[in-house]
Amino acid sequence: MDASEPLNLMDTAPGIITLTTDFGTSDVYVGSMKGVILSINRHVRIVDLTHAISAQDIPEAAFSIAAAYPYFPKGTVHVIVVDPGVGSERGALVCAVADSFFVCPDNGVLSHIFAAVGHEGETVSIENSAYVLPAVSNTFHGRDIFAPVAAHLSLGVPLNAIGPPLESPVRLPVETPELAGNTVTGRIVKIDRFGNAITNISESALAAFTGSARGAVPRYEIRVAGVRLHRLNRAYAESAGGAPVAIIGSFKALEIAINGGSAEAALGLKRGDPVVVERFV
Amino acid sequence: MDASEPLNLMDTAPGIITLTTDFGTSDVYVGSMKGVILSINRHVRIVDLTHAISAQDIPEAAFSIAAAYPYFPKGTVHVIVVDPGVGSERGALVCAVADSFFVCPDNGVLSHIFAAVGHEGETVSIENSAYVLPAVSNTFHGRDIFAPVAAHLSLGVPLNAIGPPLESPVRLPVETPELAGNTVTGRIVKIDRFGNAITNISESALAAFTGSARGAVPRYEIRVAGVRLHRLNRAYAESAGGAPVAIIGSFKALEIAINGGSAEAALGLKRGDPVVVERFV
Amino acid sequence: MDASEPLNLMDTAPGIITLTTDFGTSDVYVGSMKGVILSINRHVRIVDLTHAISAQDIPEAAFSIAAAYPYFPKGTVHVIVVDPGVGSERGALVCAVADSFFVCPDNGVLSHIFAAVGHEGETVSIENSAYVLPAVSNTFHGRDIFAPVAAHLSLGVPLNAIGPPLESPVRLPVETPELAGNTVTGRIVKIDRFGNAITNISESALAAFTGSARGAVPRYEIRVAGVRLHRLNRAYAESAGGAPVAIIGSFKALEIAINGGSAEAALGLKRGDPVVVERFV
Repeated sequence: MDASEPLNLMDTAPGIITLTTDFGTSDVYVGSMKGVILSINRHVRIVDLTHAISAQDIPEAAFSIAAAYPYFPKGTVHVIVVDPGVGSERGALVCAVADSFFVCPDNGVLSHIFAAVGHEGETVSIENSAYVLPAVSNTFHGRDIFAPVAAHLSLGVPLNAIGPPLESPVRLPVETPELAGNTVTGRIVKIDRFGNAITNISESALAAFTGSARGAVPRYEIRVAGVRLHRLNRAYAESAGGAPVAIIGSFKALEIAINGGSAEAALGLKRGDPVVVERFV
Repeated sequence: MDASEPLNLMDTAPGIITLTTDFGTSDVYVGSMKGVILSINRHVRIVDLTHAISAQDIPEAAFSIAAAYPYFPKGTVHVIVVDPGVGSERGALVCAVADSFFVCPDNGVLSHIFAAVGHEGETVSIENSAYVLPAVSNTFHGRDIFAPVAAHLSLGVPLNAIGPPLESPVRLPVETPELAGNTVTGRIVKIDRFGNAITNISESALAAFTGSARGAVPRYEIRVAGVRLHRLNRAYAESAGGAPVAIIGSFKALEIAINGGSAEAALGLKRGDPVVVERFV
Repeated sequence: MDASEPLNLMDTAPGIITLTTDFGTSDVYVGSMKGVILSINRHVRIVDLTHAISAQDIPEAAFSIAAAYPYFPKGTVHVIVVDPGVGSERGALVCAVADSFFVCPDNGVLSHIFAAVGHEGETVSIENSAYVLPAVSNTFHGRDIFAPVAAHLSLGVPLNAIGPPLESPVRLPVETPELAGNTVTGRIVKIDRFGNAITNISESALAAFTGSARGAVPRYEIRVAGVRLHRLNRAYAESAGGAPVAIIGSFKALEIAINGGSAEAALGLKRGDPVVVERFV
């Protein structure tokens, strides 16, 4: 979104609010947030992205919201509450960027989005007490601040009513693959439910590096956890027998997988592990 | 649904889409599907049936959707994505049967429904690229194909616009109890969260076999994992002390349970185990 | 709600139904309830509070619903199904209290709400078969009784149409802290996903007892699992190094926590454990 063209949510009814937290679903924390939202906007659609972010894991949340938000309509309000600093001096913000709104603590959880989009959109500090609950606790800003602000945004409250501009939201380093000669070294940034290991080597970066990401000719080698792979599979189902494969997965990035099994378990992979691609010229 | 009477979803607003997958809820896969759906039909109601199908377990998914769909209104669109063959040559289909729509890979996941209904309704192959995402990955058809097709169906797009008829959708064998003289041998087809073991011996089949399924007179014996039961309990709460009971459960089938405990754990039950009913004539 | 002023749900569209169960989300039980609800009221909003109540744990459910319902709009219909007595002679009820409706087995699950509000509102026994499914099982009243009754309530069906008054709904003892001289002894009533231990010593009770709950001067000592704490923290983030802290948490009660860690794991806490506050006069 261009900051000079504010989103007009009134064009699109009903609004949508997504929730991404580390609250789990065993407690009533998420339910309470939904009650607060529906008390303000009975018509908004609430979508759970995930509540299973590892406790207080800001990088995991940053990766998740960056991966999911592009699939939602313009004007969707995304609430992200992974908040180890709740009750401290850390700020709270609303950011309008990439045709979407993001409501979250100012702790770097938007870093991947900022890196992908190339700027920080229009960001304000949540300071107007008219848009939060009357009694704000020091332990649960998801319910007391972020949920009500999101609900008001979904009703069309403009950004500048929420608070003053926030010039430099916190940004965390977003690790990108390192290029050195004929080698590029990426990292595993996410392991999913199936044990697939997603790297930070994007499809486009891999294609540019190797000349053609999907070529059948093995002109490069992918190394991970002692395994050497010489081609990209087209589909998980192309391989069998428990052999690890490299594939461009649904995050549009290089992914290490085992068809019908878990690459995480079989290869002992974990987030942060290196994945090296070497091209043979 | 009679194939000659197409469902008119325009009669019923808003539409409903249910989701059954093996994606879990830790990752943003399900959330991305919901974003795609709401981008096409902002007004549709999305209901999660379950995302905890065991990874790539088609029979478990087939059982689950067959058990749940009858409780939804006519015209509901059910999306089932348990898809070990994603990206391979396996087909993708929409089936209109039993007053409902089903959107899924052509991998047998509708087998239980076909068996119960007695036919395959009206089935088409998803081939019209106008109703899927512009870029279809080889790894996530839930997001790229099944979600958008379901959303378009919920808007009233007719079946024949999605693709040409699919004559023989894949069907898996649906095991039925074996009758031999005065003995019927069924199988455990599902173990639920409470450790209750649901069999494929339906209430009506049991009643027909024993003369009266709910009679108090012990005219039959139920054998499972070395335990012998001589009556059907009316309610879980009728028994105590950790004794296994036989009951007609909520799936309208013979179920082995322990009141306040887990029959699965206590008897070491697992899916596929035999349950034998012998009548004494 | 004053019993003489019946809620008029027709004022507020769409209605909201929340669900609190011990069904988990692996099976299709919750999905089936939602299908039943949407078959009766297509426009109602359904919110999952939690389906992870420990199996048949009525006190845990009673605590959870009492904590969450105040955040929902007036007229919300809350369904609670933790039901070890399903199929037995235990009753089924609808209660209108605190501007809300509660639909549940008559097993004490509303005890915390009754204790907090000070009365039992207007309670009726579910007896009118017009508002339940045609065939009621003995094993799944969530689907067959509570879901359809809730859906009808959300459409504006009045309480007295559901059944006759229920004079004395089951109430379980709600343990309150014990005061003895300069000591108050409370209990851990809930341990959340982060390992925080919530007690039944409310913020207001603690403030009244100690003179000022948030005073910086250590005029009291909090003892739990051999640990002695001499102040209330204002925020989790105020402490570091894995030291346990006492804090007024989001339930507005005394809570034992470890910033960035689990008090449950580190101190071996469990529900029911005592927490003692002694004031130094």
